[in-house]
Amino acid sequence: MSGIKYKSKEQIERIFYPESVAVVGANRVKGTVPYDMLHNILKDNYKGTVFPVSPREKSIAGVKAYKYVIDIEDEVDMAILVFPSSVCHLALEQCGEKGVKSAIIISAGFREIGGDGVQREKRIKEIADKYGISFIGPNCLGIINTDPGCNLNASFARNMPENGNIAFLSQSGALCTAVLDYARAKHIGFSKFVSFGNKADVSEIDLLYYLKDDPKTKVILLYLEEVSDGRSLMKVSRKIIRESGKPILILKSGRTDEGASAAASHTGSLAGSDDVCDAAFTQAGIIRCDTIEDMFNFAIGLVYQPLPRGNRVAIITNAGGPGVLATDMTIKENLSLARFSEKAKEVLKKSLPGTANICNPVDVIGDARVDRYNVALSSVLQDENVDGALVILTPQSMTDIKAIAEEICRISCCYNKPVYASFMGESDVSIGVDILQRRKIPHYQLPENMCKAFARSYRFNRQLKKEYTAAVVFKDVDTDRAHTILNEAIMNDRWFLSEAETVNIMEAYKMPVLPGILAVSEKDVGRIAGSLGYPVVMKVSSEKIVHKSDVGGVILNIRDGKEAEAAYQTILNKVSRTVPDARINGVFIQKMAAEGEEVILGLKRDPSFGSVIMFGLGGIFVEIFRDVSFRVAPIEKNEVAGMVQDIKSYPILTGVRGRSEKDLESLKECIQRLSQLAVECTQISELDINPLIVMDRGKGCYVTDIKIMLGTERRKSCG
Amino acid sequence: MSGIKYKSKEQIERIFYPESVAVVGANRVKGTVPYDMLHNILKDNYKGTVFPVSPREKSIAGVKAYKYVIDIEDEVDMAILVFPSSVCHLALEQCGEKGVKSAIIISAGFREIGGDGVQREKRIKEIADKYGISFIGPNCLGIINTDPGCNLNASFARNMPENGNIAFLSQSGALCTAVLDYARAKHIGFSKFVSFGNKADVSEIDLLYYLKDDPKTKVILLYLEEVSDGRSLMKVSRKIIRESGKPILILKSGRTDEGASAAASHTGSLAGSDDVCDAAFTQAGIIRCDTIEDMFNFAIGLVYQPLPRGNRVAIITNAGGPGVLATDMTIKENLSLARFSEKAKEVLKKSLPGTANICNPVDVIGDARVDRYNVALSSVLQDENVDGALVILTPQSMTDIKAIAEEICRISCCYNKPVYASFMGESDVSIGVDILQRRKIPHYQLPENMCKAFARSYRFNRQLKKEYTAAVVFKDVDTDRAHTILNEAIMNDRWFLSEAETVNIMEAYKMPVLPGILAVSEKDVGRIAGSLGYPVVMKVSSEKIVHKSDVGGVILNIRDGKEAEAAYQTILNKVSRTVPDARINGVFIQKMAAEGEEVILGLKRDPSFGSVIMFGLGGIFVEIFRDVSFRVAPIEKNEVAGMVQDIKSYPILTGVRGRSEKDLESLKECIQRLSQLAVECTQISELDINPLIVMDRGKGCYVTDIKIMLGTERRKSCG
Repeated sequence: MSGIKYKSKEQIERIFYPESVAVVGANRVKGTVPYDMLHNILKDNYKGTVFPVSPREKSIAGVKAYKYVIDIEDEVDMAILVFPSSVCHLALEQCGEKGVKSAIIISAGFREIGGDGVQREKRIKEIADKYGISFIGPNCLGIINTDPGCNLNASFARNMPENGNIAFLSQSGALCTAVLDYARAKHIGFSKFVSFGNKADVSEIDLLYYLKDDPKTKVILLYLEEVSDGRSLMKVSRKIIRESGKPILILKSGRTDEGASAAASHTGSLAGSDDVCDAAFTQAGIIRCDTIEDMFNFAIGLVYQPLPRGNRVAIITNAGGPGVLATDMTIKENLSLARFSEKAKEVLKKSLPGTANICNPVDVIGDARVDRYNVALSSVLQDENVDGALVILTPQSMTDIKAIAEEICRISCCYNKPVYASFMGESDVSIGVDILQRRKIPHYQLPENMCKAFARSYRFNRQLKKEYTAAVVFKDVDTDRAHTILNEAIMNDRWFLSEAETVNIMEAYKMPVLPGILAVSEKDVGRIAGSLGYPVVMKVSSEKIVHKSDVGGVILNIRDGKEAEAAYQTILNKVSRTVPDARINGVFIQKMAAEGEEVILGLKRDPSFGSVIMFGLGGIFVEIFRDVSFRVAPIEKNEVAGMVQDIKSYPILTGVRGRSEKDLESLKECIQRLSQLAVECTQISELDINPLIVMDRGKGCYVTDIKIMLGTERRKSCG
Repeated sequence: MSGIKYKSKEQIERIFYPESVAVVGANRVKGTVPYDMLHNILKDNYKGTVFPVSPREKSIAGVKAYKYVIDIEDEVDMAILVFPSSVCHLALEQCGEKGVKSAIIISAGFREIGGDGVQREKRIKEIADKYGISFIGPNCLGIINTDPGCNLNASFARNMPENGNIAFLSQSGALCTAVLDYARAKHIGFSKFVSFGNKADVSEIDLLYYLKDDPKTKVILLYLEEVSDGRSLMKVSRKIIRESGKPILILKSGRTDEGASAAASHTGSLAGSDDVCDAAFTQAGIIRCDTIEDMFNFAIGLVYQPLPRGNRVAIITNAGGPGVLATDMTIKENLSLARFSEKAKEVLKKSLPGTANICNPVDVIGDARVDRYNVALSSVLQDENVDGALVILTPQSMTDIKAIAEEICRISCCYNKPVYASFMGESDVSIGVDILQRRKIPHYQLPENMCKAFARSYRFNRQLKKEYTAAVVFKDVDTDRAHTILNEAIMNDRWFLSEAETVNIMEAYKMPVLPGILAVSEKDVGRIAGSLGYPVVMKVSSEKIVHKSDVGGVILNIRDGKEAEAAYQTILNKVSRTVPDARINGVFIQKMAAEGEEVILGLKRDPSFGSVIMFGLGGIFVEIFRDVSFRVAPIEKNEVAGMVQDIKSYPILTGVRGRSEKDLESLKECIQRLSQLAVECTQISELDINPLIVMDRGKGCYVTDIKIMLGTERRKSCG
């Protein structure tokens, strides 16, 4: 939970804004990476000075070359290394001696190939640390800074992108080339473009932190194959969104196990559970995208137009069919069709032909020319019942596509409301699409994608307004008592806590656990059960048995001493038959909870995100529907309600059709206390409360069955 | 259930293959529909003869014009009407007199505008019927036949599409222009292209039936805003798929209520429930698409390449990131990554660089040129563990895009296995994309969409192999007995059946209903309950009360005569308090079912698809998760199992974690009997069996509570 050490602004700035660059390992062979790197810097009009460094050549591309970096007389701010990985350390050592303070290591053959590569990567990192060099890579495509004051294309991408306000960071170098090509055709501009590769030094976290205050960047896109430090990613993302209002969009691949294993063989990384990743991103305010296309569809909406202040959209179309498709998606995305004011309707009625539909979606009819689009768009943008406009065009033979595109651009400038457009088709509409793209009207080939993008922008604006609340910290907990129990168990090399210990831990954190005592002989049973008060539950106690019910180790609703004694024998007999090798400590006797709704609370340690709390309804809801929600601990105060409401079966807790409303306040407190336990007792590797019984409103909850596992290793359990 | 009367092949052929065409209402004003129609026919090289008909002009576009159709000396096969709607009937009458046998009515202003328009449409239909004229429209864009023997562009679309094997039928004219533009840019060719508009005469059903035997058509696409005759659509689709193996893809808009109401105001149609539509399409083997893009993505896969014989794909990529994205989608779509044979692995290992990944996905590395793609693609296609190949390319600076595209085309011709491609980016890759598109390799900008399309093709192939089975017809039912009860209730103007009547109907259809008798006074209660045998259930009987439990009208598990008498009073007291105005017939006493899993069976009449059977698990599963499945009745024998398995909670019936397996055979028989009841007793408008109790395997089911509503009108019920 300690603070993250980010690279300083100066350190990153030296990479994006160097005044002089050495290309170390440049050559004269066109079509190779070493040549392309130098060539790109030159052809794209870098504002600083570039020095080719080559052991063999006197000049490359007409520019004087140096044998070694140390031979350069002038100061060198940054070095770009395109040498084979086996000699990179030598070149970097020289850069250090020369006083170079930043580098981009393009070369592959490091951590991603395993074995020797891992050692090589360690070595260059050590050299960089020794000389205070910050570097991007290795195993990357390079970086691009479109800022006209620098104009550096230090990458082997084919083309320099347009200048714009989108920053793009990618773990995959190859994907960058596809993205640049895709974006160029759509006139999408970038502020900074970074392929960060193996991130042996400068990480995506450092880059994000830098972009927070980069005045050229308004939206940040990130492609990730592994979330190596989920905690820091969440923290820096929250900081960016809160302090700068910049949206962060992440495309994270490796959603399926097979995808993750393809990722692992590719970057030597370990992908975490995808459900947890989803939850963590949402918790941090990150917009997760499913495809590259979605990512840019959302980004252009966010960066080109004002954020929608509300969800009431006006749809304008010259074709009924696409209007229906757009309406479908509008509703599906929880937007609403604006109801026009009388004034707007009057203007539309007066100015559009009788066959036009003046309700929403406004159908200006197939033969509409620019005048009808003008009237329709102006009227709806003026209407205070409208938060934004979605304009659809299909290319009829009389449609003046160019004029309509220009008019949309013109009108959209007059109002501080978002306007998105969808000119359907491809060749015929391209003249209009080009105008829209150049003049920053977000354009989508499909009306459905337009609606989805608008909805994203709206949701982001709502999120910005959400107040940040820290997690509640309960002062009444006894952390020392919990630690004593946990540490003793670990000292004794135990991996599960006994029932008595788990009850103790729950009590230390003031979780509403039902009292219980372990009986070790039949003669104690009646006395213990009587002291707790009937009815009681009896459960076998054994470190080897995790799923007690499955082996006949649990008997519920025991009403008197006679039943209790019989239950003791029944349990021991059954369990010794089903799990003959399990050492049995005795039978745990616990007061039985009154009837209520059974929920499950869990705690897991995720390799990327750390402590994760799980919540769901008990039984089949978890087993069959997987109807659970996750949050990373500590759970912020205003996230708790959302966590409970996220499950589909939530209405069961609020009382539907004859059911009573459950004690949600008490449930939320339990979740928050568990979150605090997760943060403070890191000895626990996994914890299951199954079930927690939630009583009617005002009547609290009861923790009944608890399992606590220790250590970082997972042990297989029987039963 | 009677046979559908399709238009004959000759009738439709006259529209697609006329030897002479009159454009009635043509003019000389460029940019208007009447001019564009004539101009398109001329410029796109129609192989027949065209006659302009205009009251005013002597010639149009250099072609001799006639004042009236009857003035034309030669025979006229087809007339295209572009007159205003108010005079269309006069023109059509003349066409009839002239002996014209087919027509396309472009003009708008008919049913879609309501009022007078509806009358006008009726009138032209009457005239057409009188003269035996088959016509497309009104309110449409026209038709296109790319068959080189005819080459007719009888539409006001901007451009004639390429010749190909996809037929496209659309209810929306405006959408057609966008589709043509979209397809042209991608070299997607069409066999027939039809905007059928209001389909006053020739319907989409007729067109589908014709396309079944059209040798030029291999895949059929249909855009619909309303399903006006769902039964016929299902029937003809099944016939096409079964007899010709041609896939049918439908984009049906109006998924949401708002979308449907936008559709209604657009075409004056009524959209049915979307869930039912989904189920019906699946039942008929129709592929439902979400967007125009999906539709063409799937279509090109189906039409360009052989269908995948299995689901084992090989992915080849020059970039790790996109390989991971593709793997994710492959798994999500239930495809599997092929495990290569030793032979294939050996070749790959020998021919690719050491850093390449020779497992699936095959990563030929960023600097791959055509030789590596060649080796990788040939090897995997030769491997008998591979059912198809997905090739990904990102534009690195050294990638020879054109050569790789050509090589993919060449290799794919050597093997009878599907090859799909995704060249990522836009401008740089366009040269390769163009080659792939022209040579019919299905191409996708996103690897994810490529995987989705491949999965669709695979699923279609599996579906083709599925055997068709008729619905089971039970001979032991007593339809007359059911009809007597239903007709008597209708004669008495009743809209709900009483408990005794519903039990009677169930018995007539041999549904396993528990015996029950209505008690009308307290003194009968003990005797009746005793005769049935305890335990019993008692329920209030009143036509006004549908949800009996909600008003305290049900008491379960009554064990003796004393309890039964008390229950009688309790029910009457409670109900008279909660629903004071309900006339109460008495209390229905029924034998109580043993414990089992509660499921719901329902019957509804859908305006588009007719009798629809619903199935789901009882209680919260239906109420909160809406976890239900639908089938249109009669349910084919091999659809029943699928219907039961479609619900997410299905594992509950098969026995999970300590539960017992339920009697699925008996459940399926109940569903089939209900399906037969739905077909034979059309007096029933709605029926609910809630719950049907499904016992353990071999022990049957019990119908407990049943509601049957009559008539076509829905009555509001209280309680």
